[in-house]
Amino acid sequence: MVKKIEHIGIAVKNLKQANEVYEKLLGGPPYKIESVESEGVNTSFFQTGESKIELLEASHPNSAIAKFIEKKGEGIHHIAFAVEDIKAEMERLKKEGFKIINEHPIKGADNQWVCFVHPKDTKGVLIELCQKIT
Amino acid sequence: MVKKIEHIGIAVKNLKQANEVYEKLLGGPPYKIESVESEGVNTSFFQTGESKIELLEASHPNSAIAKFIEKKGEGIHHIAFAVEDIKAEMERLKKEGFKIINEHPIKGADNQWVCFVHPKDTKGVLIELCQKIT
Repeated sequence: MVKKIEHIGIAVKNLKQANEVYEKLLGGPPYKIESVESEGVNTSFFQTGESKIELLEASHPNSAIAKFIEKKGEGIHHIAFAVEDIKAEMERLKKEGFKIINEHPIKGADNQWVCFVHPKDTKGVLIELCQKIT
Repeated sequence: MVKKIEHIGIAVKNLKQANEVYEKLLGGPPYKIESVESEGVNTSFFQTGESKIELLEASHPNSAIAKFIEKKGEGIHHIAFAVEDIKAEMERLKKEGFKIINEHPIKGADNQWVCFVHPKDTKGVLIELCQKIT
């Protein structure tokens, strides 16, 4: 079951510049800056209530974020929901008819197991499920 | 100062059908369905942790949601942040160089004063500020 919005992912061209904008907007600096090589992204995280804003910059030209920006421009890339048991939730959603993009959970940024639900089944929204790695 | 993510707004073509999808995804039905005539939208709200998912369907062809879907298709339309004092926050952000679309707060869905920050200043993200009407 979905517990909360874990984060909202925003695709940006220049992480340093975007960090300055979101620091002004949210009233404080990112608590973490992290590169995820396997996903080809540099990320920053801002805490806001129980959720986070994640800014994502492509670290190589073939990354999904680079392609997203090329096609759609900068903007909201995905919503991530926190779940207790990601594997159980993947099974539940598959049975409900959603297409899960990953066969198994993968290691995402900020110490989470993650998977993605295809936007064709969710009214155009790329949805990520996250389970904290403990 | 931003307190939390109040909601994420998602533009959909058919609210009834989208409600069924998000009920399956989030594990429960919307807690509220509401029309906002002044904005030309029918909305539904799902609680998830301290935040909400708001689905938005155009109620007339000239509404901003109809135009958004025509241009970009269904998908995430805006992020709304809860603030204590919307007028003070509008002033603060104006001084920081953000363009606020509304001159004064307007009455939004789910009992909130709202205003919008122009996406040109926020890396392509339409941001709403909300203050609960008490």
